[in-house]
This record gives sequence, C-alpha cells and structure tokens, in this order.
Amino acid sequence: MGRVADAYRRDPSQVNLVRLQRAVEPPRQELFRRLNTAAGGTGVLVEMRRRLLKTFAERPHYAGIDADLAHLLGSWFNRGFLVLQRIDWRTPALVLEKLIQYEAVHAIQGWPDLRRRLQADRRCYAFFHPALPEEPIIFIEVALTRGMSARVQPLLELDSPVADPASANCAIFYSITNCQEGLRGVSFGNLLIKQVAEDLGREFRRLKTFATLSPIPGFRKWLAAMAGGRPQLAELLARLEAPRWFEDRAVAKEMQRQLVRLCAYYLLHPKQGAEPLDPVARFHLGNGARLEKLNWLGDTSVIGMRRSAGLMVNYVYRLEDLERNHEAYAKDRRIVASRRFEVLARDSLVARGESAAAALA
Amino acid sequence: MGRVADAYRRDPSQVNLVRLQRAVEPPRQELFRRLNTAAGGTGVLVEMRRRLLKTFAERPHYAGIDADLAHLLGSWFNRGFLVLQRIDWRTPALVLEKLIQYEAVHAIQGWPDLRRRLQADRRCYAFFHPALPEEPIIFIEVALTRGMSARVQPLLELDSPVADPASANCAIFYSITNCQEGLRGVSFGNLLIKQVAEDLGREFRRLKTFATLSPIPGFRKWLAAMAGGRPQLAELLARLEAPRWFEDRAVAKEMQRQLVRLCAYYLLHPKQGAEPLDPVARFHLGNGARLEKLNWLGDTSVIGMRRSAGLMVNYVYRLEDLERNHEAYAKDRRIVASRRFEVLARDSLVARGESAAAALA
Amino acid sequence: MGRVADAYRRDPSQVNLVRLQRAVEPPRQELFRRLNTAAGGTGVLVEMRRRLLKTFAERPHYAGIDADLAHLLGSWFNRGFLVLQRIDWRTPALVLEKLIQYEAVHAIQGWPDLRRRLQADRRCYAFFHPALPEEPIIFIEVALTRGMSARVQPLLELDSPVADPASANCAIFYSITNCQEGLRGVSFGNLLIKQVAEDLGREFRRLKTFATLSPIPGFRKWLAAMAGGRPQLAELLARLEAPRWFEDRAVAKEMQRQLVRLCAYYLLHPKQGAEPLDPVARFHLGNGARLEKLNWLGDTSVIGMRRSAGLMVNYVYRLEDLERNHEAYAKDRRIVASRRFEVLARDSLVARGESAAAALA
Amino acid sequence: MGRVADAYRRDPSQVNLVRLQRAVEPPRQELFRRLNTAAGGTGVLVEMRRRLLKTFAERPHYAGIDADLAHLLGSWFNRGFLVLQRIDWRTPALVLEKLIQYEAVHAIQGWPDLRRRLQADRRCYAFFHPALPEEPIIFIEVALTRGMSARVQPLLELDSPVADPASANCAIFYSITNCQEGLRGVSFGNLLIKQVAEDLGREFRRLKTFATLSPIPGFRKWLAAMAGGRPQLAELLARLEAPRWFEDRAVAKEMQRQLVRLCAYYLLHPKQGAEPLDPVARFHLGNGARLEKLNWLGDTSVIGMRRSAGLMVNYVYRLEDLERNHEAYAKDRRIVASRRFEVLARDSLVARGESAAAALA
Repeated sequence: MGRVADAYRRDPSQVNLVRLQRAVEPPRQELFRRLNTAAGGTGVLVEMRRRLLKTFAERPHYAGIDADLAHLLGSWFNRGFLVLQRIDWRTPALVLEKLIQYEAVHAIQGWPDLRRRLQADRRCYAFFHPALPEEPIIFIEVALTRGMSARVQPLLELDSPVADPASANCAIFYSITNCQEGLRGVSFGNLLIKQVAEDLGREFRRLKTFATLSPIPGFRKWLAAMAGGRPQLAELLARLEAPRWFEDRAVAKEMQRQLVRLCAYYLLHPKQGAEPLDPVARFHLGNGARLEKLNWLGDTSVIGMRRSAGLMVNYVYRLEDLERNHEAYAKDRRIVASRRFEVLARDSLVARGESAAAALA
Repeated sequence: MGRVADAYRRDPSQVNLVRLQRAVEPPRQELFRRLNTAAGGTGVLVEMRRRLLKTFAERPHYAGIDADLAHLLGSWFNRGFLVLQRIDWRTPALVLEKLIQYEAVHAIQGWPDLRRRLQADRRCYAFFHPALPEEPIIFIEVALTRGMSARVQPLLELDSPVADPASANCAIFYSITNCQEGLRGVSFGNLLIKQVAEDLGREFRRLKTFATLSPIPGFRKWLAAMAGGRPQLAELLARLEAPRWFEDRAVAKEMQRQLVRLCAYYLLHPKQGAEPLDPVARFHLGNGARLEKLNWLGDTSVIGMRRSAGLMVNYVYRLEDLERNHEAYAKDRRIVASRRFEVLARDSLVARGESAAAALA
Repeated sequence: MGRVADAYRRDPSQVNLVRLQRAVEPPRQELFRRLNTAAGGTGVLVEMRRRLLKTFAERPHYAGIDADLAHLLGSWFNRGFLVLQRIDWRTPALVLEKLIQYEAVHAIQGWPDLRRRLQADRRCYAFFHPALPEEPIIFIEVALTRGMSARVQPLLELDSPVADPASANCAIFYSITNCQEGLRGVSFGNLLIKQVAEDLGREFRRLKTFATLSPIPGFRKWLAAMAGGRPQLAELLARLEAPRWFEDRAVAKEMQRQLVRLCAYYLLHPKQGAEPLDPVARFHLGNGARLEKLNWLGDTSVIGMRRSAGLMVNYVYRLEDLERNHEAYAKDRRIVASRRFEVLARDSLVARGESAAAALA
Repeated sequence: MGRVADAYRRDPSQVNLVRLQRAVEPPRQELFRRLNTAAGGTGVLVEMRRRLLKTFAERPHYAGIDADLAHLLGSWFNRGFLVLQRIDWRTPALVLEKLIQYEAVHAIQGWPDLRRRLQADRRCYAFFHPALPEEPIIFIEVALTRGMSARVQPLLELDSPVADPASANCAIFYSITNCQEGLRGVSFGNLLIKQVAEDLGREFRRLKTFATLSPIPGFRKWLAAMAGGRPQLAELLARLEAPRWFEDRAVAKEMQRQLVRLCAYYLLHPKQGAEPLDPVARFHLGNGARLEKLNWLGDTSVIGMRRSAGLMVNYVYRLEDLERNHEAYAKDRRIVASRRFEVLARDSLVARGESAAAALA
C-alpha cells in the first residue's frame, strides 16, 4: 500500500501504530480469513472453534488460537450482518429440526411439542447469518398471554387451547437458546430480545408488558454452599430432597415462606466479582431489564427443581427504561428490582443471620 | 474472559501476545464495529471510507483511520460472504441503473445499450454482499463469440445480431468494474473471473477459450514519457494527434508496424517496482493469465485512442494453468506471454534503441 | 362417469340437462383445454385469440371459435387467479419494458419517463396471472397528490419535484391500460381500481379522495356529429382547428365557456343504447364512480386536443358508495354526478337548442 | 357483445350454437365463477365439492350441481396451471404435515418416517395449484435403487442405510396419492409420473428403469368371489386366514405356486366393462405402462395381506413406449405384459377350470 508509505513521510507516528498492529496480528488471522473464502468456510471455522473450546481444558496453550478465532468470528457475526427471521410452521423442516435439537432451556419433546410452540399465541424468532443460511444462531420463544405468566408448565402443555393473540397484553419470553457453541462469547441475546419486543409491540398494539419467565439456575447450588454452619438452611435443603415434597400442602407452605425470601436475597446480594452470582440475572440485568416477581412452583420439572428449587422469576423489559437501567448497571452495578424484592430479601434466613452476626460483632 | 486468565496461569507468553494485540488494536475498530450494528451501518462505513480516500491527499494524518477501516472492510467483504449473481433483463431496474452509472471501462449509453449487453450472447455477473443487498460490489461483462474477439466496437454495437450462445467457443471478458470506491484495495476481481469462467464452462460445453479483451491504459502515457530524446518516437506521437489518422491506409499501416512492436515491449519490460508498469497487465498477470495477442485498432473510441493508441490485448485465462502462472509471477515476477510478444518486443524502436545504446556503451 | 348413470336412474331430467350441456359444448373447448396443458400453452391461446380478433372483420364465421376461446379465457382469467403486484423500480426490467410498450393512455417516453412514474409520490400496480408470469394483464398508474389534480401534464413532467407521499390527501388514477388484446372483453379494471384504492387507503391514512383524471375520448367526435345544422357549433369546431388557439386568452375564455357546458351535456345525455356514449364514462360509471369535475385544458397534448378538446374529467371512487351507485346504474342507468354537471349541461348550446326545438314543437 | 350480433347477420347458424350453449349453461357455473373471485374462493369450491360427493348417495338430484362444479374445477385445474414442486426436508412443515395426513398407499408413521422418505435416495414430488399455494394436489414418492424393487417393506424401513442416488439404476414409484377429494375425477396422475420420470432421467443419467411397485387391491376380493363352487380355491382362501401362514416354509411354497398364477390371471383377464377389474391396473395400463413382474410377499403388512394376499406388481414406464401402449389400450383395450404373465395366467387354477369347463361344454 503506497498510501501508508506516503503518509509515513508526513506523520511517522501514525504509521508506526499501523505497523505495530500488523506486526502483532498473528498470521493465523489471515489464514482463517483465507479458509473463509472457500465454499462453506464460515461453517467450518465455527465448528473448528467449537472443537477447540472442548479441548481447551487440556490444552491451555490453545488460548492464542482461540483468541484469534473468537476475534474474527466476533467481527464477522456483527449484529449488522445478522437477519432476524420469524420461525413458524411455514419454516423448512430442516431448520425446525435444529430447534428441537438445540433448545437448551425447556427441552422440545418432538414435533407435536414444537408445533404447539409455533401456534397463533406463541412466537419464535431467530437470528441467521447469510453465510450459514439454514443454521439458527440464537432463537427465542415467546408466549402471548393475558397477565404475566407465573408458571412455565401451562405454557408448554401440548393440549392447551390456543388463545387469540390479539387479546394478549403480555409477551412472555420463556426460552432463549444460543445455538452455536463455536460462537461462545459472541453475544446477541440482548439485541434479539429488544428487536423482538419492538416488532411485537408494533404488531400487537395491546401488548403492555414484555417480560421473561426465567429459571434461577444457580439458586440451589448457592443454597448448598451456604448451608455449612447454618442448620436451618441444611434442614431446608434436606427437605428439598424428598420426592414431590411440594404436594404436601403444609410442608409446601412453610418451604415457600423460606425459599422465596432466600431466592430474593440470592438474586440481589451474592456476587461474582461486581455482578450478581446468578448467570441468568447477570444477562437480563445487564440488558437493562428489571427484577419483577418471584414465582413459587413456577417450574416443577425435574430440572427446574434441581437447579432453581422450583422457583422462576420474571424480568421485565420496559423499552423506555432499558437504556437507563443498563447504564446504572454498567457503571454502578445497580440492580433495578421491584420493591417486594428488597422486603423479601431483608427478611430471609441468610440476611437475618448476617444481621445477627453483624450485631454480635 | 476467564479463559484468558486461566490460560495465563499455564502459559503467560501466549497471553501476553493476545494482550498486546488488544492493546494496539485502536478503539476505532471497536467503534466501527458498533456503527455497523445499526441498520444500514455497513453502507455507511463503505461511504465513510470513500469520502476519507477523497480527502486523503490533504489529510495524510487520516492514514490510521483509513487503515482501520480498510482492515475491517477487508475482513467483512471476505469472498466467503460475497454472493455471485447473474445480471440479466430480469434483474430489478434499480440494480441495472447502477451498472449504467458505475461502468468504468466501456461506458453504457443508456438502457438500449445495457439491454444489448444482457442478451443471449452476452453475460453479466456481479458479486453482492448480503449487507448491501442492491449494491453491486464488482461486475463483469462477457461476450460469447466464435473466435477470440480482436475489436471491442463490434461487441458494443446496439444493432448487432444476437448469436446463438450454444455455438460459441470463446468467452470474452470485455469489461470489469469495481463499483465501490470505499472498498479500494479489497480485491475480488480475480475470484470473479475464475468463478465466472468455471460457471460458463459448465453451462456451455463448447467453450474452449476464456480471454479478456483489455485496454492498455498506460501505453500512450509511457510513449510520451519515452519520447524525449527519441525523435522517431516523438514523430509517431505527433501523428497520433491527427484526427482519425487511422483512416488513411498508408499512414495506418506504418503506424501499426511501429505501435504494435512498442506496445509489446511496453507490456513486457517497463516496471513499477518489480511488476509491469501497466495496471491492467499487473492485474491479469497477477491472476495467472497469459499475454496472448495484440489487436490493432481494437478500440477506436476517443478514450481508446487517447490511452491505448487504439490497441487492445487479449489475456487468456486457462483454468488449468492459472495456479502455476500465478506462482511464477508472484515469486519471480515471470510474465507468461505468447511467443509473438517476445519477437515483436525485441524488434521495437525502443528495444532497438536500447540495444544500440548497449552496443555503444 | 358412473355417477351420472346412477343419478339418471333416480332423476332423468337432471341428467338430460347435463347431457345437453355436454352435447352442445363444442369439441373445440376440449381441444383448447388440451393445448393449454403444454408448457406455455396459456400464452399461446391468448395470442391465438389476439390474432383471431384482428381478422374478425373479414371472417365473421370465426364467431363460434372466438366465443369458445373467450369463454375459456374468461373462466381461466377469473379474478380469483389473478395476483396484484406493485410495480416499482425493483421490478425486473423485462416487465418494466412491457409497461413502456403497452401504455395506452399517456405514452411513456422511455426509461426516464417510466422512472418518474415509479417514484415515491407515484404508484403503479398490475394484475398478473400465474400462467403468464412476466406478462402484466392490466396496470394502473396513480399519483399521490395534495388536492384533486385537474391537469395531467404536471403529473407527467420528468423534472417535477418528488413529493412526500405521507402528506398526500388524494390518490389520482391517471392511467389504466389493458395489456392483452387477446383478453378483450374479459374485464378486470373495476376490480383493480377498487383493490388499489383499498390498499392505498390502508397504507396512507390521510388519503381522503380517490379519483381518476380521465380523458373524454368521444367528445370531439360527438361535437362534429352534432355540428350539422348548428352554425354556432360548427364555428366552435372550426376554431378548435387553429394551432394552439388556447394560448390566446380571449379566445380561450370564450371557448371554455362553451366547451365546458357542451362536455357536461355530452357526458350526461347522449347514449349508446341505454348507456352513455363516452366509453370511459361507461366504464367508470358502471363501476359505481361519480362524475365529479370537468377540467379545462386538463390535457393539452396533441391527442388530448384531438379527442377531448383538451378537457379532462375526474371520476370519484368513494368506496362506501360504489355498490349503491353501481346498482343504480345497472338497474336504472342512473348517472351519479355532482350538482355542477347538471347546471352546466342545462346551459349548453345543444341543450338550449333542444329546449328551443321542444318549445317550437 | 356486439360481435355476436354482427356475426349473426352473416352466419346465423354459428350464432345459434353459441346461443344454445349459453342457454344450457346453468347459471350455477356463473355463480361458482363469482364465488371464485373472493379471496380463498378456489379452496372453498374444492371443499364444497368434497362435501357434495359425500352426500351424493342420499341426494342423487345433486348430480347437476356436481357436474357443474366438476366441469369448472376440471377446467381450472388444467395441467397448464399446475406447478411441479420437489418436496424435501427444506419444504415448510405446514406442507409436510399434509403429506403425513394424506398419504393413502403406505401410511406415514410420523415425522421420522417422513424424514426417511425424503433422504438422498428417495424423492418426492407434488403438483400444486397457484390458487391453493400450500395444498398439494397429488404427490408421488420414489425410491432410487439398484435393481427393480420387489418388496416394499425394505423401502419403508426407518433405519435402512441411505444409498448414493448417483449409483441407482432404477426409479421405483412406490406411492402415489390424490390429496383432494373435491377434485375426484380430475386426473393428474399420469402427467405427474411422466414428468417425474423425465426429470429424474435428466438428473441421474444412469437410471435405466422407471417402474412402480404397486398393490393389487382387488385381488383377494376377486378370489373370494370366484371361490364359490371351486373347492380348491376355497381351501386356498381359508389358508390365507391363518395368522402369519407365510412363515411356514412348506405352506408358503405351495401357496406361492397357486397365488402367483391366480394373480397373473386376475390382472390379465377379468374385466369391468372393457377394462381390467383391478383399479390400479386400469390406471397404469391406461397410462401406457407395461405389466412387468409379480412379487411374492412384496407387501406383508396387514393391509397388503388383506387386499393383495401379500403380492405386489411392477408396472414399467418406458417413456418411448408410453404413447404406443396407451393407444393400443385406449383403442383395443390391449394389455401390454411381459411374457411370463401369459404363461403364469394360462396355468392358473381358474384358467384350467375354465379350459376344463370349455372342454366339457
């Protein structure tokens, strides 16, 4: 490039930086760019990174290769190149089959299950990349409901009557799945939720609330970690082991009182670095959503019980607040939550224990 | 990224490199990536670079900005993301209009001219990028002919009879235009020619020869530069100034004898750095094509006369030789040319002058 | 068909009718149906009828063949099988070229003229049939304007500024062309206007008026026919022959007074059978439109002067009145017109002449 | 129409015929044509006829209505308006679901079964009509095999390995289903088979044989009808009632000897009117196919046993013979069969019985 040479004569410092960049950019990146020129090359590189990540633990010296691939893929899978597509019963079976295979939150039990999730009172959207034409990158499932859903099982029921979407006032995001392991760390989820919320708002003027119905996947693990030296907590955990304990009314009532408070505390206070411990909370709060409501027995599936002790939570996406909430979170790690959360959390076993400890100290 | 941290513990040197890369990558690249996420962002960035390049002469300190943009655009407009599309009379007028506007080799004189270039014995192909859906990146025009075309005017004639493409044995690439000034330096031409040659070869089994009919845009300028101290050359140049001199048989014959030899010499010998002085020659020889044949009065248009003294040249693309020729050119700057070229060049005024000079020395 | 046989046993009269139908249906219809099964067959049949109609005058015995073809084509080109498509600058050039060729009301003067008619403040729609995929059946051109257009030349001007369609309150249908001579008598125009009006009304909420700007193609011919024995009329007609007479203010003013009255009379009173003499009036009034306003010097083109003495007329399509107006017209041949028309017509030379004659009688 | 009036003056007889046609064409046809102009009208009319046919037995006086509808639908669903589409795993689920629902020959057992039928060594094609865009009219399933398939169960096996279609030499049409009950009597099957055979022949140059693997659905019913007064036949029929009798080698061998002969006789000799008694035979022989080979235990499913005593038959479609065979069948009801058929038939129980009877007479 003669331009660089010309420029050098006038302002060598600029050019030195450009040269430094070129020098430290590993030839691997150029190699990957050339691999990408072949037909199907992009898919091969995504798959290559997927395998790389799998073997990462044993081969830490692959860090550099991974960094290069991640850098390139992050640049190529820029939001500007992704295409939002609605997924419905008109979508090619080839693509639908992949949703069944990829769904990571509430497993799809075959074609009739998928079909119910694509009917008039449900919506499904995915991002696609032009170089991977039949391969969803990420997809989201939405239920159009009257009132904010508190429990996921009714949403997943195959025989539930199909409601008129025009009468819905809530859009409930009940599942969001990243499909490409090879794109780990390249994030699209927030953009997908926002765009889908905007599109639905335009299509259905009566929609007032956009909210998730989300698991709290780290809750029970945290409970277990906290139980050491806290006999009340240990007893609570022991009871959670009993099969279908929640069917005993009296037991369930007492459990509810305790677990809801503990979960509120869990979502607000324990941290990983400066951010919430719960990964799903990190994601939605980072997007600017608001912690809205805890739902007792929101997910009574085996996995819902094992991870979240059956609780689910609604994060509300108010489009007009997202920017402000996101800023508050990004700068000060401030969590925007409904008033109830604070009250519940203050009154939890752990919080009280800590207050007592503080008082004793 | 926890991965980098983990890896660091095991192999700090790798991680240092990754960190260095990140440190020297200017924040501008990240800024451009974010601009790209907006709707229409890619088009805006391509346009931004177009303007940048225009003001480059006055503002050499923009070299760094340009380098960043060029780097990103080069990565994003990777061949793997481009889509080859045939352009014909079924193409939206919106796109066809741009061809008329962009064509840089043999100007398209309105819709009837374009229409003739899209009939059964002509082909046109373009690369498109999914983020610029109605914007050709580069396009090529092909004539399917019997025998290798020596003159371009018959190909461009509006009223020429349309030949049966199935009877053609030659595909003549008579025009190739880069449409996006903002993508200067990001090269696709060689890939376009190769893919079009392959596709045409599959469609028309009788095609034996794939060749260009190309201008020699630097020829007359070089002649002028050489004329100093060479009275014979100066006289030749003076004659070229006479209007329609080539219509006088006797004059034309003498001129042909001289100019053909000089042009052969021009294409083989004078250099810019290690490469041929002529930019079109650099392009095709760099692609692995072979200098095949000079065509006297191949382009008698005003521009053809002014730049190339009316001469045109065929570069032949033999798919099976491209790789080898390209290697020879890339490593040793070896130019593959037909035998005739050497003979003509050796016998040219300039060559003889040089031999004489050498003999005297 | 065993069903017919079965039915016969129970109700012979029904079956006799079915048999009679079969017997009188000429084998030609079956032949045409078989021709249609071949690839491109539908196009061949439409072309066949076009040629048939051309030779009809000399070959009246073709009436039966024509009746069969017309019957089949009418059944096949049923509105249920037609597809409405917007025509714009994204439409394939192949189709656009046909519009240039077919336009029958205000000739399209090449591609720049067409381009102006497809910009943001213009709309164009066509019906297509799936068996003739790139062949418009009928198309309509619309201008989105502020206020009801009175003159067509400003609408056709190539360099007129493009208005913002969102600010328009009128949709002016200024041209409608049946493209397929072979489908003569198979009518789609009314359906096209209604559907386009509905679609535009949904897209642009501010549109209040849907109206044509139409020629009065039989006006001047009728004037000539009436001039015999009416010296005032004869003189008027003579003046119309003077080149660009309308540029003389005084002359034009007097002419206007007379011609507008005569034209109002022409549109309301003279008949062909029970319907208006003017063919364009028959079409729009039959569709349920209303005679709204006469426009002096609405079309000063050569053809506009020759046929309509420069006058144009607006027919208004009020969607909510179409049905009622159509019924009144179909049953009682009642013409729905604005009050002004009656007044003007009553005061015209001819009307006065007739009153005088009536008074004398 | 003034044309008819004009023509009448010159040739009244022609016009009388046209008038007679119009007079006997029931106003119902015009009514149906108007219904068709509404959105979705065509689908409504097809459904209307489906219902009509269901109630036909009780309401024979509907014969006229049905005849009118059948006439119009036959005209509208002319082959020239149908579009052949390949059905594969890229087809919208909405359409695939209908194949599962409609398949009438070898029931599709859910999505995994359908998926196997759409893999690389299988093909599926359907005719669609533009006015019923997601509604298959008729579809055919093809297996690409080495050698002519004799048994259908291996073709339907979910876990069978997928063969390389490029190595196939036979295309076996193993299922063809008319989807629209409302189009009964409007026949497309022969056109579908021929076009699919032609298309496959172009795509896979090694294909030598195009053949069906068909049931013989009337065979066992005919056996039962013949058993009266034929004790040997009655005994054979009784044995067929034993569950899974064919698993006893000795029994099966004897049964095979008898049944194959009887079936050959059945396909060649008994008639309904002038045509073969077996409906599937009528269809394929009418198309110009040739009776090629009987396959013992070709279909051991419950339904295959019940209808066809487990036998299947190959009809071969040789494109170059279809026309001639069809003519021979249409004019003289001549059945084209391989030599083996005649030999087997002559030697069957029934044939021998008839010969004996003839001898006694």
